[in-house]
Amino acid sequence: MAEKFEPALIQGRRFEVIGIGNAIVDVIAHSDDAFLRENGLNKGTMTLIDAAQAEALYGLMGAGIESSGGSAANTVVGLAALGGRGAFVGKVRNDQLGGIFRHDIAAMGVAFQTPAASEGPPTARCLIFVTPDAQRTMQTFLGVSAELGPGDIDASIIADASVTYLEGYLWDPPAAKAAFQKAARIAHDAGNMVALSLSDPFCVDRHRLDFLELVEGHVDILLANEAEIISLYQVDDFDQALQHVRGHCQVAALTRSEKGAVIISGDEVHVIDAVPVAKIVDTTGAGDLFAAGFLHGLTQGRDLHDSGRLGAICAAEVIGHYGARPEVPLAALVGEKLGLA
Amino acid sequence: MAEKFEPALIQGRRFEVIGIGNAIVDVIAHSDDAFLRENGLNKGTMTLIDAAQAEALYGLMGAGIESSGGSAANTVVGLAALGGRGAFVGKVRNDQLGGIFRHDIAAMGVAFQTPAASEGPPTARCLIFVTPDAQRTMQTFLGVSAELGPGDIDASIIADASVTYLEGYLWDPPAAKAAFQKAARIAHDAGNMVALSLSDPFCVDRHRLDFLELVEGHVDILLANEAEIISLYQVDDFDQALQHVRGHCQVAALTRSEKGAVIISGDEVHVIDAVPVAKIVDTTGAGDLFAAGFLHGLTQGRDLHDSGRLGAICAAEVIGHYGARPEVPLAALVGEKLGLA
Repeated sequence: MAEKFEPALIQGRRFEVIGIGNAIVDVIAHSDDAFLRENGLNKGTMTLIDAAQAEALYGLMGAGIESSGGSAANTVVGLAALGGRGAFVGKVRNDQLGGIFRHDIAAMGVAFQTPAASEGPPTARCLIFVTPDAQRTMQTFLGVSAELGPGDIDASIIADASVTYLEGYLWDPPAAKAAFQKAARIAHDAGNMVALSLSDPFCVDRHRLDFLELVEGHVDILLANEAEIISLYQVDDFDQALQHVRGHCQVAALTRSEKGAVIISGDEVHVIDAVPVAKIVDTTGAGDLFAAGFLHGLTQGRDLHDSGRLGAICAAEVIGHYGARPEVPLAALVGEKLGLA
Repeated sequence: MAEKFEPALIQGRRFEVIGIGNAIVDVIAHSDDAFLRENGLNKGTMTLIDAAQAEALYGLMGAGIESSGGSAANTVVGLAALGGRGAFVGKVRNDQLGGIFRHDIAAMGVAFQTPAASEGPPTARCLIFVTPDAQRTMQTFLGVSAELGPGDIDASIIADASVTYLEGYLWDPPAAKAAFQKAARIAHDAGNMVALSLSDPFCVDRHRLDFLELVEGHVDILLANEAEIISLYQVDDFDQALQHVRGHCQVAALTRSEKGAVIISGDEVHVIDAVPVAKIVDTTGAGDLFAAGFLHGLTQGRDLHDSGRLGAICAAEVIGHYGARPEVPLAALVGEKLGLA
């Protein structure tokens, strides 16, 4: 059995969390179910597409709104909106979308020092189709984001972050996997923690053996939703997955949409209710923002219950509007809802 | 006194409205009043800035969302969302923001055939600061949009549009003024109508003599808000402006925010109530969408009262959310609210 979680271990660094992930600009448009069917899109999941597919699909897509995205990037932005100290590593090009990504993450107070590529494919974009049921179906053209490599990992920043947070999506581009492994080593050597989000059930399918090995041996804090953790262990229901994951990393935070979340660490198990939302508009970013609240809680020394509540509050905010990043100052919202300020 | 308005004159063309205007991508972010004061921004108005100013101000701006904008472009998109047939003329570059502008307007079903520039400054952007009172303060870098010229005016399309709709903002870039004049000539020669939006009180200040001459001799349908029409005639209140404008063009639609709108044509005067909005979030696009509803009504042969109501419904939709283009299918909304479908 893994040791009981000790939040005191991971305080006092310059950054609470450094996220490493794909640097993506989201293009969000309304869609209907017929459109998804006609174009063979798998609702609620993320699929990788190439430049030609991205161009063709964008041609069929409705008028969109653009905003900076990327899973780990959304998380560190959410953490910054809570008043936390975040940093980000990811690859953009020196093009207009790259400039938008850099501006937005910096404007939220997140340190982002990875230099832009001056050649190669353009900045990554994710075409997000939001259906009337508020589900988002994502088609990602990784572009230059796939060129993130070990050379982009600055050891001094990783060593100075309580948590190094990695998105599972990083396993898709091969060079990024090496960057991921390098960062995890540096973090552990410095006595810091490594967190992993499983990102997407199909991403888990693509990289199951790697993810199992990571969860077994390299990850301290695991974040996954129900579909992802069931996919990881290839079991039939949530409880079976829950039994598998216990003991395999210091902390696991498993999110279940409207059923809330289950947090486990050693013998501790917390069942956290979802925070009610007046109208769910767009679920994009729900997991990313849960991670923001949860990791901010842990790195601030809160217990697992309160950290889980923080995650639930942040997730509820982001699904009440379009887009994957918070629209309100989360710190104020949390103070109001949790009485924790 | 001008003739009584005869909507029957302007039906049966391939397009109901062709808009000619700046082709702009909006960057919208929250702001507070202190930010406007510190940066010398004039609340509620549009100011032109150069590339260096745009870069500096963007650096100070919060994280944004990007969406296609441009005043006349918003109007023809709104008209298309009502089920109308719209076209647009404006200049983008062959860069990422230009691609976004072209995609979005085409996705709404608007014909947009102006070729992108392959050199010169980038696609125009408008930095929009939305304060908690829902006012928008716009800082526009015109970029390549300022290079729109008479060569971009395709006579056959103008001749085939019931209304050629021009934004006053086009008076700022000098070559566009010539494009504007050419388009107005072609429209009138083909027996079509010319509509003008005064755009902004400061824009009226910059071009008052030109606008007065236009309204006197070249414009059939004038759209203006209260501040703009007061600025045009340099009078003290709305009623004085109203008396001036009567008789100077076939139709004038004067919008007054929560006080509604006044429509005049010859001896007819209609006072139209504003449509109540649960919560005003962002007034960006209010005038543009009023114009969309109003012009769609006229070109569909509706009377001035119903056309004004259509404008008010469309304006109310767009101020209930962020961004200058409709979020819902306006045709359905209008059917529901007006019982006109």
